[in-house]
Amino acid sequence: MATTPAAPSLSAAALQLAQHYRTVRAATSSLCATLSAEDQMVQSCPEASPVKWHQAHTSWFFETFVLSPFAPAYRPFHPDFHWLFNSYYKSLGEEIPEKKLRASFSRPSLDQILAYRAHVDAAIASLLANPDLPAADLDSVLRRITLGLNHEQQHLELALTDIKHAFFTNPLQPAFRAQSPDAFDGQAPAQQWIDLEGGLVDIGYPLNSADPLDFCFDNETPRHQVYLQPYAIANRLTTCGEYLAFLNDNGYSRPELWLSEGWDTVEHEAWQAPLYWQRSHDDPHGWRVFTLGGWRNLAELLDTPVCHVSLFEADAFARWRGCRLPTEAEWEHATVHQANELQRQSHPELSEPSSFFPAQQDTPNLLESNTLHPTPATTESLSQLLGPCWQWTATPYIGYPGYKPLPGALGEYNGKFMSSQVILRGASCVTPQTHARATYRNFFSPATRWQFSGIRLARAF
Amino acid sequence: MATTPAAPSLSAAALQLAQHYRTVRAATSSLCATLSAEDQMVQSCPEASPVKWHQAHTSWFFETFVLSPFAPAYRPFHPDFHWLFNSYYKSLGEEIPEKKLRASFSRPSLDQILAYRAHVDAAIASLLANPDLPAADLDSVLRRITLGLNHEQQHLELALTDIKHAFFTNPLQPAFRAQSPDAFDGQAPAQQWIDLEGGLVDIGYPLNSADPLDFCFDNETPRHQVYLQPYAIANRLTTCGEYLAFLNDNGYSRPELWLSEGWDTVEHEAWQAPLYWQRSHDDPHGWRVFTLGGWRNLAELLDTPVCHVSLFEADAFARWRGCRLPTEAEWEHATVHQANELQRQSHPELSEPSSFFPAQQDTPNLLESNTLHPTPATTESLSQLLGPCWQWTATPYIGYPGYKPLPGALGEYNGKFMSSQVILRGASCVTPQTHARATYRNFFSPATRWQFSGIRLARAF
Amino acid sequence: MATTPAAPSLSAAALQLAQHYRTVRAATSSLCATLSAEDQMVQSCPEASPVKWHQAHTSWFFETFVLSPFAPAYRPFHPDFHWLFNSYYKSLGEEIPEKKLRASFSRPSLDQILAYRAHVDAAIASLLANPDLPAADLDSVLRRITLGLNHEQQHLELALTDIKHAFFTNPLQPAFRAQSPDAFDGQAPAQQWIDLEGGLVDIGYPLNSADPLDFCFDNETPRHQVYLQPYAIANRLTTCGEYLAFLNDNGYSRPELWLSEGWDTVEHEAWQAPLYWQRSHDDPHGWRVFTLGGWRNLAELLDTPVCHVSLFEADAFARWRGCRLPTEAEWEHATVHQANELQRQSHPELSEPSSFFPAQQDTPNLLESNTLHPTPATTESLSQLLGPCWQWTATPYIGYPGYKPLPGALGEYNGKFMSSQVILRGASCVTPQTHARATYRNFFSPATRWQFSGIRLARAF
Amino acid sequence: MATTPAAPSLSAAALQLAQHYRTVRAATSSLCATLSAEDQMVQSCPEASPVKWHQAHTSWFFETFVLSPFAPAYRPFHPDFHWLFNSYYKSLGEEIPEKKLRASFSRPSLDQILAYRAHVDAAIASLLANPDLPAADLDSVLRRITLGLNHEQQHLELALTDIKHAFFTNPLQPAFRAQSPDAFDGQAPAQQWIDLEGGLVDIGYPLNSADPLDFCFDNETPRHQVYLQPYAIANRLTTCGEYLAFLNDNGYSRPELWLSEGWDTVEHEAWQAPLYWQRSHDDPHGWRVFTLGGWRNLAELLDTPVCHVSLFEADAFARWRGCRLPTEAEWEHATVHQANELQRQSHPELSEPSSFFPAQQDTPNLLESNTLHPTPATTESLSQLLGPCWQWTATPYIGYPGYKPLPGALGEYNGKFMSSQVILRGASCVTPQTHARATYRNFFSPATRWQFSGIRLARAF
Repeated sequence: MATTPAAPSLSAAALQLAQHYRTVRAATSSLCATLSAEDQMVQSCPEASPVKWHQAHTSWFFETFVLSPFAPAYRPFHPDFHWLFNSYYKSLGEEIPEKKLRASFSRPSLDQILAYRAHVDAAIASLLANPDLPAADLDSVLRRITLGLNHEQQHLELALTDIKHAFFTNPLQPAFRAQSPDAFDGQAPAQQWIDLEGGLVDIGYPLNSADPLDFCFDNETPRHQVYLQPYAIANRLTTCGEYLAFLNDNGYSRPELWLSEGWDTVEHEAWQAPLYWQRSHDDPHGWRVFTLGGWRNLAELLDTPVCHVSLFEADAFARWRGCRLPTEAEWEHATVHQANELQRQSHPELSEPSSFFPAQQDTPNLLESNTLHPTPATTESLSQLLGPCWQWTATPYIGYPGYKPLPGALGEYNGKFMSSQVILRGASCVTPQTHARATYRNFFSPATRWQFSGIRLARAF
Repeated sequence: MATTPAAPSLSAAALQLAQHYRTVRAATSSLCATLSAEDQMVQSCPEASPVKWHQAHTSWFFETFVLSPFAPAYRPFHPDFHWLFNSYYKSLGEEIPEKKLRASFSRPSLDQILAYRAHVDAAIASLLANPDLPAADLDSVLRRITLGLNHEQQHLELALTDIKHAFFTNPLQPAFRAQSPDAFDGQAPAQQWIDLEGGLVDIGYPLNSADPLDFCFDNETPRHQVYLQPYAIANRLTTCGEYLAFLNDNGYSRPELWLSEGWDTVEHEAWQAPLYWQRSHDDPHGWRVFTLGGWRNLAELLDTPVCHVSLFEADAFARWRGCRLPTEAEWEHATVHQANELQRQSHPELSEPSSFFPAQQDTPNLLESNTLHPTPATTESLSQLLGPCWQWTATPYIGYPGYKPLPGALGEYNGKFMSSQVILRGASCVTPQTHARATYRNFFSPATRWQFSGIRLARAF
Repeated sequence: MATTPAAPSLSAAALQLAQHYRTVRAATSSLCATLSAEDQMVQSCPEASPVKWHQAHTSWFFETFVLSPFAPAYRPFHPDFHWLFNSYYKSLGEEIPEKKLRASFSRPSLDQILAYRAHVDAAIASLLANPDLPAADLDSVLRRITLGLNHEQQHLELALTDIKHAFFTNPLQPAFRAQSPDAFDGQAPAQQWIDLEGGLVDIGYPLNSADPLDFCFDNETPRHQVYLQPYAIANRLTTCGEYLAFLNDNGYSRPELWLSEGWDTVEHEAWQAPLYWQRSHDDPHGWRVFTLGGWRNLAELLDTPVCHVSLFEADAFARWRGCRLPTEAEWEHATVHQANELQRQSHPELSEPSSFFPAQQDTPNLLESNTLHPTPATTESLSQLLGPCWQWTATPYIGYPGYKPLPGALGEYNGKFMSSQVILRGASCVTPQTHARATYRNFFSPATRWQFSGIRLARAF
Repeated sequence: MATTPAAPSLSAAALQLAQHYRTVRAATSSLCATLSAEDQMVQSCPEASPVKWHQAHTSWFFETFVLSPFAPAYRPFHPDFHWLFNSYYKSLGEEIPEKKLRASFSRPSLDQILAYRAHVDAAIASLLANPDLPAADLDSVLRRITLGLNHEQQHLELALTDIKHAFFTNPLQPAFRAQSPDAFDGQAPAQQWIDLEGGLVDIGYPLNSADPLDFCFDNETPRHQVYLQPYAIANRLTTCGEYLAFLNDNGYSRPELWLSEGWDTVEHEAWQAPLYWQRSHDDPHGWRVFTLGGWRNLAELLDTPVCHVSLFEADAFARWRGCRLPTEAEWEHATVHQANELQRQSHPELSEPSSFFPAQQDTPNLLESNTLHPTPATTESLSQLLGPCWQWTATPYIGYPGYKPLPGALGEYNGKFMSSQVILRGASCVTPQTHARATYRNFFSPATRWQFSGIRLARAF
């Protein structure tokens, strides 16, 4: 935790991490287990990867960055997997299979990949239990496994995002799993504005570098000061009902509402609504929405946050409402401020709270809530921050002042993507709870829609 | 058969066809059975389809064109399969899934498709055994099943062609099945010229329309006269060794040898050799070749026919040799002439032989030979006509004089593709024997290489 | 001329050719002179070239193939023009500027190019008047200049085709020149069928190789026999009025009428009518048509031949009418037959007439008629053969049996384009009269529409 | 001027602006006058426009936004020019010609466009001299003309940028004008670091909204506070010599130096050096460089600033040097700081200087210097800020906090481009001096190279 003053002893940390490793890996395995080998081969859009590739690539990460350098007796599962499941680490000096080829990965089979996972899991367990590992190595191992588990959680989220798209693309459009009819009942409170003073505020994760289990991605550091003008931020996410009003006011036909690049995309892609919305005569509003639980009429979802919109749509909607999107600093400041407020109410004895994690937030609608689709807000106060939708900000993705990537191949994780992408903050209904935090910087190109990406409004105070 | 003087009684024909139906369908099933559900999902180039799609589409053909119109009690296996497995019959008035989407067909599963096959097979068996079917209906049923079986055989051939490409594209490049090391031993005889007088000759299949089991595709009719100048045709197919000499004489770097469109393709696609040839230090000639039995050094294949060349390569090779490709009429005339020659030797009592089928040819290297790759010629006389490679001709694909497509949706089978394609004649080592005949008109666009397509030379007499 | 029994003496031929040279070159210059330097730079579609490029390239042809090899004292006008105005002769071994770059040819200026033309013209005149030129050289010079003049005439036709497209593309859509309001008056006779017996007929130009001024392109030879089934051919070209009926019968919305490749093009290009037709409220039929004389209402053009259609449209129209397009052999046989018929009527004393040129045809509507757009047919007999529209045939473009390209770079003229193109026969209203003949083989890819290409129907007798 | 306490009387301002109008328009006209009508038609890359289009579009701006609304008697020059020379103002509700079509603008001719310019100039002169114009209208007129002149200056700069590319693309590669051989002599001082403290600083232009002649673009406002960490900035621009060292260290072959999107571009575009660098055997370093004065050997330019690099190249170079690019706030703060420093030295009596314009900078190498290519730095202190190259920053282009676009169609000028573009600061050697200021925010997509864009390094203090 960020506020932990001292690191636990290394061996205790190893024990703790071994447990966390099993939990995270099992979450991936169990969610994927409901899919057939055929389902796990599909790659239905350039952003996506086959689910079985996600299962292999996350194992490859542990093999490459943990087992190969630190477990001398480790025997790779298969000589070709080293380059086959590399995704983009060009400094590893190998030819990386083109992403478009992943859909032809009939071999290795899912069975082989599951055996690969088990092979890596056993080796990691041995490594963490090895009493002879030098302390310096163990420290590195703990840090890299922690990174690897965060990597795994990212891919678990992606796998769910990708299979949703795969099933939507499939001509039979199956549901990922059944869902109860009342899953999205509830009435969202009115949208209100939360006013914040701004000023010189601290942004970024206060990493305790002495603790090998404390973690954030390199792009969340260094923590630094920024100056914020006073601003107001919406108490909750924009709902489907509110977004429908934009549609019905010809929002997709008015170029003056859109960024130039966005309007070109609207015209080129013939966008008329968010991804997964389809016209339907059965719905009183004329639309149905594809979810991981299958098709739902829009009427059932009016109070749920709109999602699967691009930055262009979020920005156009905000302009139509006479508002704007928050910057990432505004978003983070508001989120930490709110978390501390809640903490102060529940723990008035703490003089200087500083919370970055969802446990202290409003009831989180994350992966563990098992709705697999955003549900309505439940409180009038500032909520829906860490989930259930990633929230487009107005901030393009670049490094923080003084940003330094990790050394070596691991440095390719984040830094090299710092152009032409836009920051999303928060988390989504398919993000694991231990993967969500207030300082997390997600990023995609502004036309991206296959993520669970939604809208929070802001404006000048 | 073309030479059968009278049609058998309809019920005897039904019995005979029921047997043939089982044989053809079983050939498909047994060849596909060696592939996993994952293998059967791959679509690795635009020309290809997933193997499980082939299995479904061929069943769809029987359901749509035989069972739905003629078996009143027939219950479709699945309501969506009717449009899902339609490939291009636009006059059926349904939305056809885009070919590029077939790779996302994780659903229906292979299991469902195998059940679909069984469901259709049972219904066809019942229909053929139904004593109450009116004679006119039975006649139509026999003709359409015969067409459907030819369609199935085409798709079986395509499935093998496609899986070869899929495995070549797979990063692990597995073999479809093991192959003995001496599979391609043998020395091809020297290339010699067979001189033919030409003149006014008959071309096309002499269909006995009274016999519902006599069959050719509509594009092989009407049989008609063409006038041929005297010409000479090579006694066998061009070998890999001969083609290697073209490569080594910088054949792929000399624009004057190529059609303009061919040269553009060479440059755009960076062609340097036939498809499936790859540079290799292990081979004395510097190349290895991917086969359904895995990689072979070129040294092992020098006497085998070169295959997987485009029309452009075949044409450039011929120009380099100071020759040309035969026209389809020259090819057919030579083939029938040779077949009759052989028949005259074995059956001198027949006064006017006219043979169109491979049994009367040299030992055929077709699917049943089970080599799955072309083997060397074995005789000095005119050979390798019906297999083991499709043979590019100089003739663009258009209809014969007086050509009439079948009525209705079945008329979309051939006629609408009569532009910008080139005729190939013969058969390949993955063509079923009962599917090969001298009048068969295969056709592909001139840049196509994924077929087992080879080269036979011709020149002026 | 084809029927000339003996070649004139070489020096007489040189005199004659010098005169013809001046006539042909002057035709190009005077037509281009109405265009500004800016107009002559435009390249509005990939098929087209800027008019000033046409003027330069045709001069380059004489410089490269006549002056450089045969006029030892010749000094090239500009050192860069040798490669700059080469279009596709790859065997000349130079880098050829990409066609798409021609639109950036602000330099050399039009003034320089006109000076280049004058420089070449003077040198050719000197060469032809040089009494010291060896006879063998003079013979070659005469043949190559003859080829060069045919080349120039092709480019003059292309220049008019291209400038029509350029002005259509220009936002102001100017007319190339004014046109009288009654230019297209006249009523076409009813369409009738001319029945022909076919049989073994001779096709191709009977070149008198002893006469250096006798000329045809290499692809019109060798003259050879083909066997034709009996057939019927339409007496005149299809009119705009007849084509309008196809439009109004939803011709562009019915896939069953189209070749598969054609239907794809219709959908991809959103074709709804021939090129240059545009919807208009001012016309009773709803269309106006862009001509070199500016916009005309379709109502004024109903009896004129439809033009600027692709092979796909011609083929679909024919299918809709229950007919087909003629083969090129059928077209040529009918044309020569008709020419001979006319000649027999006017010159009954000739026992074996064989005419290939338009003078013996019906009144030609070629470039010299100066309509620059097709006019209605004027007779019930077989007419509109050599003009006013190129006529799509059913025949893909390949070489005749025994075809041999010219040796060297000149051999790149025709032969290397013999794939994926379709033969058009006849001539158009922008073809010079001395460039039209019955054996001429024009060819374009089947989607081409910027040519003055029209439709003549055929069917079985 | 920014520091002007009170606006001059409106009529005096009108007189002053009329003079400025003539100066700016004459600059455009005289630079373009050296180009032929053909030269002014070329459009050689998607970013560029034909020079004659620039001349027309800038006139259209005055016609549309000044004359039509405020000069009641104004008669448009041509009815079609209103839509023809609109570039992107979609809210004007007209169909805008596709940019790719501009190259086919042979009509209207250059002569017509020059007449159009004269027509507009006369009308503007009349309007500014009209004593009856209401004060409120005159105020608007002054503001809009001021905007229009800045717009004109942008297009003059673009015209020079575009014609450079056009001449580079032309096969003859002519020079725009002759240049003296010693134009780029001079030795750049060593690169040194200028350390700055940062802190809370003010950024943006302090517009005096009461003065109709005071001007900045809307995106330079509102002036606001940002917090800067201490930083160091290079005293001068990166030279060609320094950039050559990056090339020679295989900078274009090492993916680890590049942003991911940048590396993809390097590979896709086969970049090996800045735009306009070409390999040459005549230069000791192996390169020559195309300038508006024609080709120069790199050896002559080693001390001049490198230009025509993309953001990707600037960023990779900085990473290779262990540095980074400055943010736009760092750049502006350093520039204003330096300007004030210089002003304090020359005018010590001013207590609070705040200068944003080049007159107070080091000797500017802007358009008026007439070098048309960057020259070497001449001083060791912080220099080369406003010219001679645009300087890529690390800052993506978005609006300042509280940014409001202009109302109506004029609001489309800047705001709608705020995605996927990166800020460049400074000015270039083809920027008019009255168009350069410290707060100017130029922006292009990160792969852009046809601008005079160079590199200034920064790093942590």
